[in-house]
Amino acid sequence: MNLSHYMTNLGEIAREASQAIAAADTRTKNTALIAIADELVAKQQDILNANAQDTSEAQQKGLADALIDRLTLTSEAIENMARGIGQISELPDPVGKISDMQSRPSGIKVGKMRVPIGVIGMIYESRPNVTADAAGLCLKSGNVVILRGGSESSHSNQVIGQCISTALKSTNLPQGIVQVVKTTDRDAVGQLITLKEHVDVIIPRGGKGLVERISKEATIPVIKHLDGVCHVYVDKDADLQKALDISDNAKTQRYGTCNTMETLLVHESLASTFLPKIGKILSAKGVEIRGDDASRIHIMNSLAATKSDWTEEYLAPIIAIKVVSGLDEAIKHISTHGSQHTDAIITENDAAAKRFIREVDSSSVMINASTRFADGFEYGLGAEIGISTNKLHARGPVGLEGLTNQKWVVFGNGEIRR
Amino acid sequence: MNLSHYMTNLGEIAREASQAIAAADTRTKNTALIAIADELVAKQQDILNANAQDTSEAQQKGLADALIDRLTLTSEAIENMARGIGQISELPDPVGKISDMQSRPSGIKVGKMRVPIGVIGMIYESRPNVTADAAGLCLKSGNVVILRGGSESSHSNQVIGQCISTALKSTNLPQGIVQVVKTTDRDAVGQLITLKEHVDVIIPRGGKGLVERISKEATIPVIKHLDGVCHVYVDKDADLQKALDISDNAKTQRYGTCNTMETLLVHESLASTFLPKIGKILSAKGVEIRGDDASRIHIMNSLAATKSDWTEEYLAPIIAIKVVSGLDEAIKHISTHGSQHTDAIITENDAAAKRFIREVDSSSVMINASTRFADGFEYGLGAEIGISTNKLHARGPVGLEGLTNQKWVVFGNGEIRR
Repeated sequence: MNLSHYMTNLGEIAREASQAIAAADTRTKNTALIAIADELVAKQQDILNANAQDTSEAQQKGLADALIDRLTLTSEAIENMARGIGQISELPDPVGKISDMQSRPSGIKVGKMRVPIGVIGMIYESRPNVTADAAGLCLKSGNVVILRGGSESSHSNQVIGQCISTALKSTNLPQGIVQVVKTTDRDAVGQLITLKEHVDVIIPRGGKGLVERISKEATIPVIKHLDGVCHVYVDKDADLQKALDISDNAKTQRYGTCNTMETLLVHESLASTFLPKIGKILSAKGVEIRGDDASRIHIMNSLAATKSDWTEEYLAPIIAIKVVSGLDEAIKHISTHGSQHTDAIITENDAAAKRFIREVDSSSVMINASTRFADGFEYGLGAEIGISTNKLHARGPVGLEGLTNQKWVVFGNGEIRR
Repeated sequence: MNLSHYMTNLGEIAREASQAIAAADTRTKNTALIAIADELVAKQQDILNANAQDTSEAQQKGLADALIDRLTLTSEAIENMARGIGQISELPDPVGKISDMQSRPSGIKVGKMRVPIGVIGMIYESRPNVTADAAGLCLKSGNVVILRGGSESSHSNQVIGQCISTALKSTNLPQGIVQVVKTTDRDAVGQLITLKEHVDVIIPRGGKGLVERISKEATIPVIKHLDGVCHVYVDKDADLQKALDISDNAKTQRYGTCNTMETLLVHESLASTFLPKIGKILSAKGVEIRGDDASRIHIMNSLAATKSDWTEEYLAPIIAIKVVSGLDEAIKHISTHGSQHTDAIITENDAAAKRFIREVDSSSVMINASTRFADGFEYGLGAEIGISTNKLHARGPVGLEGLTNQKWVVFGNGEIRR
């Protein structure tokens, strides 16, 4: 079977299975999730063996330590994987929920029902835990998933996929609900993202390069975010202590996440009071500060920011700082240079807060809170399959609800249109 | 200025204007809508003159009567256009609405706010009233629109566009909110649907050929439906009178609309009672019946259906009829041959009704009601910009809410992530 036939076949199996999982009741889905979690724990040693093969091949190829680190599984990691799937079984099932019912003058009642999207194509780098997480989220939301992880983790992914298949066999659900692509051929990705007939949406997770390539080449809608150039704007009416706490936390709690602040905007009236203090805090933590001229007057040892600093996602202990003349300039800066991910204002002024949340068109907009909160768990979604900065469908952290949509349901009693 | 520069320039103006209309309050938007309605009535004669030029050119080109008919405006049609815009001003404004607020253990409050999509590219055939309708709906929902109507209606569209511009000049809103593409160059469409930087979504309205071409070539998400192969399934527990009324209405109330029933599925246990009656009703109205063997036994003068009848959108007094063995076969038939537009079940059996609405994955699913109700006005949306059979974002009739999306809003009081 050549690659194109193989991928089309996966797509056909997926589409066929989608009817059954969409119609499955909550109990059936939860039973399947628990069976998967149990099987992962039971086959722990098999997973570890396969993972050892992946890591040793990665070492032989001389791959970077960071990559090998992400790739490596431990007993604890596998138990966490299983626990994660167990938690998904406890989340409320969005599918079938009817809302917005209204009676119309014609006599019909109209409402909306939550339904699964259908078939999800998931493409990700070499983190074997994503295989289990994504399978769990898609199953619970009534979707079918085709999983294509990075080739470096392929042995681990295959064994995790087998665990899922074995678990599904013990239920009434078709095994086609979760399929792990078996080939490491890179062209499989190109095939998957153009399987228009069989796949409804692609969710890529990984570096900007991967996501950019997939968005460009996919003929299927893609739920994605490219980068997180997140801002904190310290308004003239900010509470100084909150501004310091949040700016510090948003930058330094974790450097490598997409909801980490990269650019700090400060109202000119606070420059002389706020900037020396935050400069000291950040410098003490080893953060490199790149400021505009107006901010550098107030910060020791800062470097001069260049144009590219305003659009860079550092993912590192580096921050860009700029003094602005007010809310207008802050909003303008964010809309020009931001990535519509997460942006926060620090202010005690209601009117400023309202304008900021209304006018900043990002997937998460915050008042007096750290950008680091932009996260599925923190928002109460339970888990997230990714983050979206798209304009359509789900924006921000995508959980079970983001993996569904709403259709119209009409209840009549013989009504006809006049 | 060459075409590519011209279209990019429209896109830049649109993006620039989107900030202002997104931030505009309801009163400002309603004032602008009323000004537009007034201006259309005031400049009625100019619109009629331009329209006369369009229709006379269309006649000279020997275009079909049906097309010229759709193209032709009267005083009454212009007043209806104005009234339609007036009605949009009375609809509730979805923008800025906050919902789903919840307090999280961290102390933050998380909710969702409705926001405009941004810039809409609207492509449609030669119906000048769409120019006004689409402008009104986009404006009210806080979006910017670039309008590209069929070249046959270009004089009418230009004058309507001028009316809108004049009206906007009397408000504080930028005129760039509504732009009518000035060139009739066909390549303008190709440019518009690939203006990724400046346009967020494309909405095509017109025949299947147009929509298909646009979906294929667009690099921007497209809100669309290709066709409406709508079904009515008469279940074994159907009330016969309701089944007759609804089947008749769904087929014959209007033949040319996308929510008209094209295929009637009948449970075998009702074949001998229901089919002769519906056959008589439809034949009396001149509807051509194409049935499978099992149904033809019970219907006088029916033709034999061929395979292609199950997937055809007739938009004409023709119907396909098939006898099925039960709910399973009905659902299977709809999922195999339907277009995920609108499908109805006629039944008094709750379990059957529930399975049907849950398992039929169409943008509108109905119980005991005519498919002809799948319509923005009938659903209480006030007006619709189109109908979507997409899997993501809006499904079914798309009104003001379908032209918006939700972002996350977080309200804190200095919270940081631990």
